[in-house]
Amino acid sequence: MTTVRLAREDLHVSVSDPESASMNFLNEIAARFPDAIALAAGRPYDGFHTTDDLDRYLRTYLAHLEGLGLTHEQRQRQLLQYGRTNGYLGDLIARMLLVDEGIEVPERAVMVTTGCQEAMVIALRGLCAGPRDVVLAVEPCYVGLTGAARLLGIDVVPVPESADGLDPGTVAAVADAVRAGGRRPRALYLVPSFANPSGTSMPVAARRRLLDVAERAGLLILEDDPYGLFGLDDERRPTLKALDTGQRVVYLGSFAKSCFPGARVGFLVADQTVVGPGGGRTLLAEELSTVKSLLTVNTSPVAQALVGGFLVEAGCSLRAAGKEKTAFYRHNMRTLLDALDRWFGADPGVRWNTPAGGFFVVADVPLTADERMLETSARDYGVLWTPMSFFYGGGTGDRGRRSIRLSCSALEPALVEEGVRRLAAFVADRSEPGRPGPGGPR
Amino acid sequence: MTTVRLAREDLHVSVSDPESASMNFLNEIAARFPDAIALAAGRPYDGFHTTDDLDRYLRTYLAHLEGLGLTHEQRQRQLLQYGRTNGYLGDLIARMLLVDEGIEVPERAVMVTTGCQEAMVIALRGLCAGPRDVVLAVEPCYVGLTGAARLLGIDVVPVPESADGLDPGTVAAVADAVRAGGRRPRALYLVPSFANPSGTSMPVAARRRLLDVAERAGLLILEDDPYGLFGLDDERRPTLKALDTGQRVVYLGSFAKSCFPGARVGFLVADQTVVGPGGGRTLLAEELSTVKSLLTVNTSPVAQALVGGFLVEAGCSLRAAGKEKTAFYRHNMRTLLDALDRWFGADPGVRWNTPAGGFFVVADVPLTADERMLETSARDYGVLWTPMSFFYGGGTGDRGRRSIRLSCSALEPALVEEGVRRLAAFVADRSEPGRPGPGGPR
Repeated sequence: MTTVRLAREDLHVSVSDPESASMNFLNEIAARFPDAIALAAGRPYDGFHTTDDLDRYLRTYLAHLEGLGLTHEQRQRQLLQYGRTNGYLGDLIARMLLVDEGIEVPERAVMVTTGCQEAMVIALRGLCAGPRDVVLAVEPCYVGLTGAARLLGIDVVPVPESADGLDPGTVAAVADAVRAGGRRPRALYLVPSFANPSGTSMPVAARRRLLDVAERAGLLILEDDPYGLFGLDDERRPTLKALDTGQRVVYLGSFAKSCFPGARVGFLVADQTVVGPGGGRTLLAEELSTVKSLLTVNTSPVAQALVGGFLVEAGCSLRAAGKEKTAFYRHNMRTLLDALDRWFGADPGVRWNTPAGGFFVVADVPLTADERMLETSARDYGVLWTPMSFFYGGGTGDRGRRSIRLSCSALEPALVEEGVRRLAAFVADRSEPGRPGPGGPR
Repeated sequence: MTTVRLAREDLHVSVSDPESASMNFLNEIAARFPDAIALAAGRPYDGFHTTDDLDRYLRTYLAHLEGLGLTHEQRQRQLLQYGRTNGYLGDLIARMLLVDEGIEVPERAVMVTTGCQEAMVIALRGLCAGPRDVVLAVEPCYVGLTGAARLLGIDVVPVPESADGLDPGTVAAVADAVRAGGRRPRALYLVPSFANPSGTSMPVAARRRLLDVAERAGLLILEDDPYGLFGLDDERRPTLKALDTGQRVVYLGSFAKSCFPGARVGFLVADQTVVGPGGGRTLLAEELSTVKSLLTVNTSPVAQALVGGFLVEAGCSLRAAGKEKTAFYRHNMRTLLDALDRWFGADPGVRWNTPAGGFFVVADVPLTADERMLETSARDYGVLWTPMSFFYGGGTGDRGRRSIRLSCSALEPALVEEGVRRLAAFVADRSEPGRPGPGGPR
């Protein structure tokens, strides 16, 4: 029998997803230079949970189910069997959203997903019905969203963001242009608070205007909110979903940062009314359960029980129970901003933004911040960062070529400071002041 | 602000997936008539695992990692953080496949998935690159496969099966017809042993011929093998992957029946060589990791640890460690076949097949086995079965209208017997001998 040989270009385009390839490159560099300080890693800090917590979370959740009146057999079945497609945490998550965010949604509007990534795939798949349907997305954009769209064959139309996040007027203009071109802008994806990768946040007034623009443009909004707990101050920034009186927002949530990533539990909230051919009404989250069942059947109920136990212990308030995490990330972000000021304050060629919270800062640098330069930085200077070009189509174009994303979420504070010191040495040696990038130094 | 109203027909076609709708109907009927005996439920029996096992599996796996030399911090990180896209169980699964099935594949050919459903989505997505690429699938077909294809916009071309499973000649003829029509038959999906829904198994000689046909037709084979452990006898039926000397088979595995469904852990084995544009070589499982990352990032490492602990305890042999499960399902299948013989042996209008193992028997019945009749059966006779039409395009056509699938996997043996007794009462009252279906009674 002859042996199969497949050609990569004969596989689906998503196999060669440029953003994913960029991220793989980053991971390879990190693996090759393990002593380099990773100002590139956007993952949460390791120190908040241990495997000793797992059994306690399970027992807490089983006791919670017992309190709800489930028999021993029902509890066993709920954790070990196949289960409800949309999951079991709707009540706890709805309560959490009310307590923490003032979001009022019925339990049945919540779908538990295998991480927030699956929630994105499900929302995109359900909403985009045909080839004319496109999704608008903030640019620079989280690579998971653009990749999910590529997987499904859905076109993404970028909406460039400003220093204050998305400008509603720009959204309206892009939506109009898409419609004028004969396509339907079905939804808009953004991270309104402490965005990944840009660190920007939308002012409250702009959030309200964005909801008006979405209504006029017939757009739904996909609000991704993984970092909302981690503001630098205690100012409450209402989510778009909290301001959403017209059920225009599908809210995408993650427990990777508020609980831990290894559970792979996220959720979506979709309380939009869907009218069937016979006039029957359901909620969008219920309609999307078919899509969920075709992807992963249901989210592991053991994983759900871990997060359920965590939520029960937290009294369904991540803001109250997560103060240690919030304090850690605040301290790290302040350390990063202080270190940038100390090491680059006198350098007019380096400028950076000052996020109000979250995990990420973007710096413009006087050099071409590409893969080759990243490798040099890792090997010769012991510091890793993320080329911003990765978030503009995977580094295939020119945008973001002289900007880098710096993250402070996964590191001890002392390493953040040392990382910036190494970055300063790298930039001092490698800067090309005679070759300003598109737009030049600010 | 006006409130959003969405129309169901304006959502993606997969939201209204007819097979999924059929399964939802079945679940609703089961919920409405909880006292009906479910000869419809294909889930595994509840009694093999308890939540008390979970902590032990986790500790077993953590000890296994310690034995491999991982430090405390590395073990914590592996279970709680984001992790390797293709998962951590490649070594244990490769060993299991060698011990139990004589399948020899390298660890890096294994991808751990969020249940076997995700494995199907990943394989279909990666292999079907454009609109000309179609998938052949055995008919009647497991609804998860046809639904996954619909989600991705991939056409499925049915290949009707015989009493001995797929006939290689029929596969060749369908593949030729697809090619003659200007499309590319990219892969063939089937369950060669104890199929769902039909219960059929392919003889070994037919398996070998199928591999030859696949080679000539340029087809890959997607071999789904969730029931392989549960033969009625100890005869070893080689999987297609065990016979596959040309790396033509992508093997899809599930731990839902051999371990428990609530872990949501499955896997795929794809050892095909992929050649990149620059001539570099990888394995298909490695190429598909991008697709996996865009669906669920990685399979919950806590869930993987549960299955990992189970595999370590089992010495990587499910055949050796799963004897209790095998004995249970054998006993139930024999009980079902004996009961059919007792209650229907004298009725020439009812005929059924005699599977060599697995969870399912198909019976031809002298009545229209549709949703309305199922409701009657549940309400008035206290027994549930699955209309076979559900597995031919979700019951939208005429095929399978006078056949039912009977399952014996989830029930106590005494209930299997009682279920068939009730089924006999239902058939006796409701048969329409004057209206034979397509093909009539056998």
